[in-house]
Amino acid sequence: MVMDGEALKERHLLPIRVYYEDTDFSGIVYHASYLRFMERGRTELLRARGISQIQLAEGSYGDACAFVVRDMKIDFLRPGRMDDELLIETTIESVGGASVSLNQRVLREDTILVTAAVRLAVIGSNGRAKILPPPLMAVLTGR
Amino acid sequence: MVMDGEALKERHLLPIRVYYEDTDFSGIVYHASYLRFMERGRTELLRARGISQIQLAEGSYGDACAFVVRDMKIDFLRPGRMDDELLIETTIESVGGASVSLNQRVLREDTILVTAAVRLAVIGSNGRAKILPPPLMAVLTGR
Amino acid sequence: MVMDGEALKERHLLPIRVYYEDTDFSGIVYHASYLRFMERGRTELLRARGISQIQLAEGSYGDACAFVVRDMKIDFLRPGRMDDELLIETTIESVGGASVSLNQRVLREDTILVTAAVRLAVIGSNGRAKILPPPLMAVLTGR
Amino acid sequence: MVMDGEALKERHLLPIRVYYEDTDFSGIVYHASYLRFMERGRTELLRARGISQIQLAEGSYGDACAFVVRDMKIDFLRPGRMDDELLIETTIESVGGASVSLNQRVLREDTILVTAAVRLAVIGSNGRAKILPPPLMAVLTGR
Repeated sequence: MVMDGEALKERHLLPIRVYYEDTDFSGIVYHASYLRFMERGRTELLRARGISQIQLAEGSYGDACAFVVRDMKIDFLRPGRMDDELLIETTIESVGGASVSLNQRVLREDTILVTAAVRLAVIGSNGRAKILPPPLMAVLTGR
Repeated sequence: MVMDGEALKERHLLPIRVYYEDTDFSGIVYHASYLRFMERGRTELLRARGISQIQLAEGSYGDACAFVVRDMKIDFLRPGRMDDELLIETTIESVGGASVSLNQRVLREDTILVTAAVRLAVIGSNGRAKILPPPLMAVLTGR
Repeated sequence: MVMDGEALKERHLLPIRVYYEDTDFSGIVYHASYLRFMERGRTELLRARGISQIQLAEGSYGDACAFVVRDMKIDFLRPGRMDDELLIETTIESVGGASVSLNQRVLREDTILVTAAVRLAVIGSNGRAKILPPPLMAVLTGR
Repeated sequence: MVMDGEALKERHLLPIRVYYEDTDFSGIVYHASYLRFMERGRTELLRARGISQIQLAEGSYGDACAFVVRDMKIDFLRPGRMDDELLIETTIESVGGASVSLNQRVLREDTILVTAAVRLAVIGSNGRAKILPPPLMAVLTGR
């Protein structure tokens, strides 16, 4: 079962500021920093829909579980710099029985710095993939 | 010359959210993450007073220069956790000819998680300590 | 011009230890930490062939230039944990006029934790893509 | 009870390489990176004495417990740079009932970049300070 209706595709926006910690000696944002930014964007998308990651881990939605990144395809198009105000855009593309696919972009005003396609899975406390708990599924698909 | 009048002591507050990236396998915030949080607080205090670190580095306030941390004394009093909303409080304690002393605290509502005394110096592009440029001095002391 | 003969495909191995800083509250290695590990692997592969990134940036191989990651496809297959001894395996797949393609794997003994296909470009000090300087090309292709 | 005989003061040395991830746009090592380096040094000192942090957390030495940093005094004397080979020197200064004091230095050949005095405490799984488990005490004091 995969759902990918329009309802999913509401984009979530998180503003981010670039600090010293995010840059490297070449003068621009270190490439792995964008993964941290995009993880913040996914965390805030879930929070905006009422899902707390710490509660997930503590079993508040059925068995204890956690989202993990299964795979990512990332294009680094333009460099970000110290002091930049960036926008992390996150869109849920589809929700399957055991995974969620998202598209993410890092924007500086009208310029796209980074694009990514991300697939998340849900794992139980034994570390194995599991079916999305129904309350999580309901929240993600809006049904 | 050291200035440490009341005018300096306006405290600056920056809200911070704790994300995955800030925690470690022991379940709490990794101790070095607080240094990143406090650096964000100092950057935002400077920005609130009209000072951009990238412009500093590019020489917009006279010769190119940069703040560096000279020393820190940090007390880690209580652990922060994933999803915490923290407040970074920064107060300038004194401004000398070549250094700035600040006090910083990391708060979760009424609980103090971390306190730090931080001394910054200004270095030129040759990496050597230098006198604070007058426009920087004026902004920091409010004179 | 693309070269991808056998000569390129000598694999480079870098041992890595997992520390607190690399993990998150879910108990496993934070996904973005693998990008830091793989960047270390690429840096050491270059160093093993006599190329220093700081010298690149300082113009020791012609004009000042730097490698940047253009795109990555990453599969996170199994979790790493605190104290793990990992091996970062890096293989140059092909060297084109303005980019280098590598395959990287993160291994724990016989277990593959992460695989990645990475494409690097070379940029000049103006931030624009440029042709690989001939000494760099020679070193990378072994010709 | 505090022990601080000569037996404690055997210094532990860990070589570290500076990578992109450790630097910032000002061109030098980001100040918080030294805390990561020094944590690696403490982890390796413990490992050299047969103590695994993950086993500590899993209760292999009595009740589950973990070291946490209680306070640090750090002096940043000189900047480190990309590609530097650094040495992290760690010396146990004293071992009390519930805390361990260490001195740490970050060296580049004969140059001291950073010095730190670090006090660790041991906490139980409830997050509260506890007495050092006897096997841990024995290992740390060499008795």
